[in-house]
Amino acid sequence: MNIAVIGASCTPYGEWWDKSLRDLLAQAQLAALDDAGLAAKDIQEIFVANMCAGQLSGQVNLGAMAADILGIHIPSTRIEGACASGALAIRAGIAALESGRAEVVMVSGVEKMTDVDHALATESLMSATDYETEGFVGATFPGLFALVTRAYMHQFGITREQLALVSVKNHKHGALNPRAHFRKEISVTDVLKSSMVADPLTLLDCSPVSDGAACIILSTPAFAKEIGKHGVNIIASTQASDTLALSHRKEFTQFYATQQAAQQAFMIASIKPSDVDLVEVHDAFSMAEIIALEDLGFFERGTAAFATAEGKTVLNGQLTVNSSGGLKAKGHPVGASGIGQIVELVQQLRGQCGVRQVNNAKIGLAHSMGGLGATVAVHILAKEA
Amino acid sequence: MNIAVIGASCTPYGEWWDKSLRDLLAQAQLAALDDAGLAAKDIQEIFVANMCAGQLSGQVNLGAMAADILGIHIPSTRIEGACASGALAIRAGIAALESGRAEVVMVSGVEKMTDVDHALATESLMSATDYETEGFVGATFPGLFALVTRAYMHQFGITREQLALVSVKNHKHGALNPRAHFRKEISVTDVLKSSMVADPLTLLDCSPVSDGAACIILSTPAFAKEIGKHGVNIIASTQASDTLALSHRKEFTQFYATQQAAQQAFMIASIKPSDVDLVEVHDAFSMAEIIALEDLGFFERGTAAFATAEGKTVLNGQLTVNSSGGLKAKGHPVGASGIGQIVELVQQLRGQCGVRQVNNAKIGLAHSMGGLGATVAVHILAKEA
Repeated sequence: MNIAVIGASCTPYGEWWDKSLRDLLAQAQLAALDDAGLAAKDIQEIFVANMCAGQLSGQVNLGAMAADILGIHIPSTRIEGACASGALAIRAGIAALESGRAEVVMVSGVEKMTDVDHALATESLMSATDYETEGFVGATFPGLFALVTRAYMHQFGITREQLALVSVKNHKHGALNPRAHFRKEISVTDVLKSSMVADPLTLLDCSPVSDGAACIILSTPAFAKEIGKHGVNIIASTQASDTLALSHRKEFTQFYATQQAAQQAFMIASIKPSDVDLVEVHDAFSMAEIIALEDLGFFERGTAAFATAEGKTVLNGQLTVNSSGGLKAKGHPVGASGIGQIVELVQQLRGQCGVRQVNNAKIGLAHSMGGLGATVAVHILAKEA
Repeated sequence: MNIAVIGASCTPYGEWWDKSLRDLLAQAQLAALDDAGLAAKDIQEIFVANMCAGQLSGQVNLGAMAADILGIHIPSTRIEGACASGALAIRAGIAALESGRAEVVMVSGVEKMTDVDHALATESLMSATDYETEGFVGATFPGLFALVTRAYMHQFGITREQLALVSVKNHKHGALNPRAHFRKEISVTDVLKSSMVADPLTLLDCSPVSDGAACIILSTPAFAKEIGKHGVNIIASTQASDTLALSHRKEFTQFYATQQAAQQAFMIASIKPSDVDLVEVHDAFSMAEIIALEDLGFFERGTAAFATAEGKTVLNGQLTVNSSGGLKAKGHPVGASGIGQIVELVQQLRGQCGVRQVNNAKIGLAHSMGGLGATVAVHILAKEA
């Protein structure tokens, strides 16, 4: 497959008390149009990703809002797959292009999680898991991930300090990203001494609650060439599912949906993991990055924490992981996150990342996860030769 | 275009206090598989429509739930466009087929609106409109539709009694539908004397809050022929948007998005309104049916209430409108509604509707609206010659 990314932008992620859901979405959508050199009327269909606005802002039907922002009347649809909403919206955009229904589509994502009226963000995020068997009985999302973390630490003998190095590395990268929620380096001690959220996960093992939006514009390769905006293409887009409830799995320390989506993506792209220069993985928790790197095929099972401790995943290491700062430091406005990952890959592949530029970046992979490994999408992007 | 509908089923709509969101979704999905004569492993991608579960049941990520129900790990995505969610999910399913990504997809929809924990249904439904300018200041969805109704009554001189005849007709049809929420005929007096909801709309002008699920299975025409399940095809699928807020419109008594989607659908299907034998329109309120029939091109502006009063829209009248009972009497589990409309059309085109069968039904149209005319999708179905 071959789909051109002709525009990409994201707002700074953070706490934006003076900006509404609509403000953030508008900011990202208009900036992406600008990046593509297109006008609103050039867009033929919109897909907008969002998870929590119904619960946190009393607002659904964001499809209509996204079209309204541009003052156009085209088909516009909200896509939701919990924290993978953005990645799933990209897949919907690609299907619209591949079906021949459209030549140019916009895929945007937004989340407004601070300064909201309706419910606590934690309760809202918990709705990504199985309410009947997990949420109803009081489990929280960090609580469930703490179970996974304990199981992994026990199974593979990694230490709390090794785990903390994921957050240390991602903050190091975030400090180099002007759009990151947190631009401050942290130490292992900072991670260990931060407030306990769900043992063994402390505050600095967890991605933050952020406001933000991201937007990309996709087109057929022919259209991209015609307007002179070709250069970066999506060469694989895959998705897989697992049980909604963690308790229904045979395994806690690997996620089948990631493995499945990754294998298919590498097959479609006709590349192998060692061909990849940089990845953005779904580090909602420090442990999530470790498991993702293994499930994606970059490291053997049980070895990614050791590899991280050895510096293999740092900027311009063996494999650059989360050059943006990841969800941990760049921030995690959930509906935007999966699209924000692609924005980072596009800007890296274009060579626009300044101090955090990955040398000679040619192939990037994005991994997005919704719920506790229940919904996973993988995208592979390549720079045109 | 040509997409085969090879399986269709919906649960009875109603108040199902003993059934959860998952129970209802499972019931519809398994019945649709059975109708298609397929096994779960034959499905290649799922699109599941839902509006309110995040707000009402603390549950999002229904894509993963829908795959989980079938015990499979395929891509599965939730689609939301307020009350048009079901119709938008169908469009996503069609795009997956037309892109070549899949040969057989499942499109399901579910809503659990009674016996839920989190918030009032009215508040949740209001999230389909513009929260910032409408919901925040206390408007309700029936309140906004009452404004539309008053404006229409004033502009075209129709009476309260004429309006009530929409509900009388739809209850007449619902009484013939074993899966309808309300199976009781009502009179004009019943409508006028029922509780006032938002002047001039009384309780019996408003569709109910229902629990229910619906599911269809779509395939390429080639696959349908191969398994001997061809016979009914989707020959047009269109969608359009309007401003999210009613106050941002020039007109209150016609909905641009319906007009736009309808014109495109008739063009794609190469038919004209008079070729259509039956329609399922989005009668969330009695006035909504009147406006839809005009916007779709079946009646001139300002005349559909008169046509209804003359009996032109009754079962086997000039144009059968809402043979299922419509949202008013069949019920309105919002995520399911747009798919339930297609289930009715499929069963009518197959000649399976018994006492409510439309004579010689060959072409049917479904109209689904999300928010206050903000998101509209139109589907046209045809029986194979």
